[in-house]
Amino acid sequence: MARFSIGVDYGTQSVRAILVDIATGETVAESVSEYEHGILTGFPGVVFPPSFALQDPMDYLNGLIGTVSSVMDRSGIRPENVVGLAIDATASTLLPADGNKQPLSTYPEFHLEPHAYLKLWKHHGGEAEAARMTEIASERGEAWLSRYGGRISSEWTFPKVLETLHCAPQVLKKADVLLEVMDWLTWILTDRLTVSGCGRGYKALYTGQYPSDAYLAALDPRLPDIVRMKMNQRVLPVGSVAGHLCGEMAEKLHLLPGTPVGTPIIDAHSSVLGGGITGPGQMMIIMGTSACHLMLTDREALVPGIQGIVRDGIMPGWFGIEAGQSCVGDQFEWAVRNCFPEAYEREAEALGLSPHQLLVRKLEGVHAGDTGLIALDWLNGVRSPLMDFELSGLIVGLNLRTKPEEIYMALVESTAFGTRAILESFENAGLPVREIVLGGGIPAKNPFVVRTFANVLRRPVRICASTQASALGAAMLGIAAAPEAVTSYRNLADITGRLGRVQPGAVQPETAEADTYDRLYADYMELHRYFGRTDPDLMHRLTRVRAGREASV
Amino acid sequence: MARFSIGVDYGTQSVRAILVDIATGETVAESVSEYEHGILTGFPGVVFPPSFALQDPMDYLNGLIGTVSSVMDRSGIRPENVVGLAIDATASTLLPADGNKQPLSTYPEFHLEPHAYLKLWKHHGGEAEAARMTEIASERGEAWLSRYGGRISSEWTFPKVLETLHCAPQVLKKADVLLEVMDWLTWILTDRLTVSGCGRGYKALYTGQYPSDAYLAALDPRLPDIVRMKMNQRVLPVGSVAGHLCGEMAEKLHLLPGTPVGTPIIDAHSSVLGGGITGPGQMMIIMGTSACHLMLTDREALVPGIQGIVRDGIMPGWFGIEAGQSCVGDQFEWAVRNCFPEAYEREAEALGLSPHQLLVRKLEGVHAGDTGLIALDWLNGVRSPLMDFELSGLIVGLNLRTKPEEIYMALVESTAFGTRAILESFENAGLPVREIVLGGGIPAKNPFVVRTFANVLRRPVRICASTQASALGAAMLGIAAAPEAVTSYRNLADITGRLGRVQPGAVQPETAEADTYDRLYADYMELHRYFGRTDPDLMHRLTRVRAGREASV
Repeated sequence: MARFSIGVDYGTQSVRAILVDIATGETVAESVSEYEHGILTGFPGVVFPPSFALQDPMDYLNGLIGTVSSVMDRSGIRPENVVGLAIDATASTLLPADGNKQPLSTYPEFHLEPHAYLKLWKHHGGEAEAARMTEIASERGEAWLSRYGGRISSEWTFPKVLETLHCAPQVLKKADVLLEVMDWLTWILTDRLTVSGCGRGYKALYTGQYPSDAYLAALDPRLPDIVRMKMNQRVLPVGSVAGHLCGEMAEKLHLLPGTPVGTPIIDAHSSVLGGGITGPGQMMIIMGTSACHLMLTDREALVPGIQGIVRDGIMPGWFGIEAGQSCVGDQFEWAVRNCFPEAYEREAEALGLSPHQLLVRKLEGVHAGDTGLIALDWLNGVRSPLMDFELSGLIVGLNLRTKPEEIYMALVESTAFGTRAILESFENAGLPVREIVLGGGIPAKNPFVVRTFANVLRRPVRICASTQASALGAAMLGIAAAPEAVTSYRNLADITGRLGRVQPGAVQPETAEADTYDRLYADYMELHRYFGRTDPDLMHRLTRVRAGREASV
Repeated sequence: MARFSIGVDYGTQSVRAILVDIATGETVAESVSEYEHGILTGFPGVVFPPSFALQDPMDYLNGLIGTVSSVMDRSGIRPENVVGLAIDATASTLLPADGNKQPLSTYPEFHLEPHAYLKLWKHHGGEAEAARMTEIASERGEAWLSRYGGRISSEWTFPKVLETLHCAPQVLKKADVLLEVMDWLTWILTDRLTVSGCGRGYKALYTGQYPSDAYLAALDPRLPDIVRMKMNQRVLPVGSVAGHLCGEMAEKLHLLPGTPVGTPIIDAHSSVLGGGITGPGQMMIIMGTSACHLMLTDREALVPGIQGIVRDGIMPGWFGIEAGQSCVGDQFEWAVRNCFPEAYEREAEALGLSPHQLLVRKLEGVHAGDTGLIALDWLNGVRSPLMDFELSGLIVGLNLRTKPEEIYMALVESTAFGTRAILESFENAGLPVREIVLGGGIPAKNPFVVRTFANVLRRPVRICASTQASALGAAMLGIAAAPEAVTSYRNLADITGRLGRVQPGAVQPETAEADTYDRLYADYMELHRYFGRTDPDLMHRLTRVRAGREASV
């Protein structure tokens, strides 16, 4: 008799629940629901600044109930055959709640208070707070800083908390807990308050403990108490049991009370599980608008510009290391939006191709180096390894015969070069990378990107079998939460190794192309060094003048 | 009773004759004729390489007869009221002819011999010969090399002659003379063989004498004799009388025999006269696909990367100095061709605007620095000051919000920065530039370009009143050839000062914009130094890889 697990995957715009056969890893039912209010743009008479990305947490809860009950109803399977469930979500996607699990945004007095709402990962309102955190941590020589690449991102937890403390202290006063949305939802499912080591480890500077009171007080004298009182929940490792489904939620989800609930995980990290990675040597790259690079390692290697390294953060028994590239798919879209003339538009229509497909077709027979172009993949700043968001994009080698498809090719190559710089920083830190696994939306639909990555990285590239690798990873955590006797899996690694999916075959590097890319990469790195290290001020000046105008508009 | 002069202006695609009132400078009649065969693309069964630009010299002669007779007929003025005529033309636009003025391309045995035809200024078949000329001149320390910016261009006379010598020696054996097309036509008009000091000075390394026999022999042992036998005509200064109209041509042109014919001039240089420049301090910039920068100076200043400095080459009594920028209007066209999406195309149509006009309208209210972009204006290599045609274009400062109009603005600014680099090299050599006069097709139709130049150069900018400044300059040379008693002008400077035309008013620099551009120019120059001098090999490598592909296609 088949048994199943449910993975619930929270993205930026929507939530997806999948029902997975625990013997085969096949998805037998699926339900997607957009957040009713999307990303909030303002309140009546108030428009939020562009750096804001707030959401209504009740949309997340409604999405949970709607999608899970829907996959149960659609599949027709009996609730006793569901062995477990778990959640993955973006992070740090944070909300303040009271001790009864109630989000503060539901309080009438906070209904028009932006900081009482859920702050999505890409809410950048705490930019100044993040900069100050980095500065003070550097001054004080905080040991944990090197685990986070030497720079605090405004996308992480503390800048968001500090922003609320500065802009709406009354919200913090009323809040009993400050939680990742995945932890809040898991609390609602189990009626037991715990937090995932993945969320706290990668996003809240938790390394077995939070930063010292002295550091926190240097940021704001109120902060040590806030952390002690409102963030000091029990931290569980990924792969563990967070609790069991409470009666109220079981009824709403059409599941049985007592169903095991796994500890939740960040969405990108979840796809490492979905992609079947069980140990060191394979780099998972989740490629969407930006990219996230994840590896399992056997020790705490300190790589420049990494986003975090967390013990048990992805797979029990290993360190999970994360790096990132700020601009990947966004950069290809930029090319299509700006460098795609009307004649191309007409040609694409006539051939029934998307703009990307037309550009790729025009590049058939074009080899590495043929364009004479090199770009820096910095159109959205640089995460790893430089951690500098005032850097900007560059294209060199333009001439009067340069065509749109060549600009596109150079922008694709530049993201592969950027990944190679990250990969080499891993290897220089003693973490060899044997193989690449690509996840996310782009690899499955753009073979040109995959081929370019194989040639530039000079390594075999595999592609996740499902674009829902994150949801599959969450379903695996549901299985891991069930007793071994029920599932006959020894542990999470066993589950991942047997159910993780990549497409058959690997894309192999082509020697001649890879040789040319070795030479071009040397030129890329010359530009990287000059604009990123020797004289970053040139790009900084340009970015600041532009930012000045954008702020005044 | 009104009197008139005729200026005949030979461009790349067409010839234009204008009839000018010598008292007012007004054009009273005008006739334009395209060259019947345009630029030749091949012979039956033969396609010329893209570096070739050959024409039929008989098209030039037919154009002379057609346009001049036409302005005479249309205007209805009596031939005795024409005081003189003169020609301006592109250069080095060279042809081989026999002693009877017959072009060798008219000989049956040379009818299918490319090198017997007229080689247009942009015929680049002698690239290898030009490189070798530079190399040997540098090795030998030839003193004249610094007058020509340290590098011989394949657009000049000797590389074209050497190419013919290497590819079709039988043509050179049969030729009695090797002439600029403007000298050949003047010979036909006057039946007297002379050459203009402007053509020989700027394009044939003539500095009162040709390069030494030792240098010429090092290039090819046959070359000293070729120069002595076929290029050794009497050199006349600009502003002098080349001769008087012969009976045969007078009849064809509907003019009187004996009408004075002025010494011809190169087209760009002629527009200095048409723009009313009579002495130092004003820089004339002829702005088309590329740009040409011309000034009169009182001494032989050696400016890095100039194209030539020639005594009496533009105006008797002064040195005429020429610099150049390889890519100006071509670069704006590149932006419209590659970075102008379909939505913009539709918007331009709806508003009845050209692409350039739409982009400029979208830039209303955008100030210096607002784009956060800087470009290098090197999409066609660099003429002055670097003389390096393996350099290439660059755009830095790109981000995800960068729009097509911002790329356009950066490319326009870069051409102004490139001009400022040339202008500063003039000033560093002790040649102050007080004011800019813009000629050519672009300034009259693109006020955004004019304003940008005023702000970047921080100087008042005037615009030639006529886009036919070259033809007007030629007509002035026709007046200069007539006796003072007839024209009541003392000399060419007197004519130029009184008849030269700029539009009323000057575009003044705006202080705030100019201040920002001072800062951006410093960044431009940092890029200029880095990619042009510190490490030019990076761009050279890219250009060569690309050139390798283009050659193999």
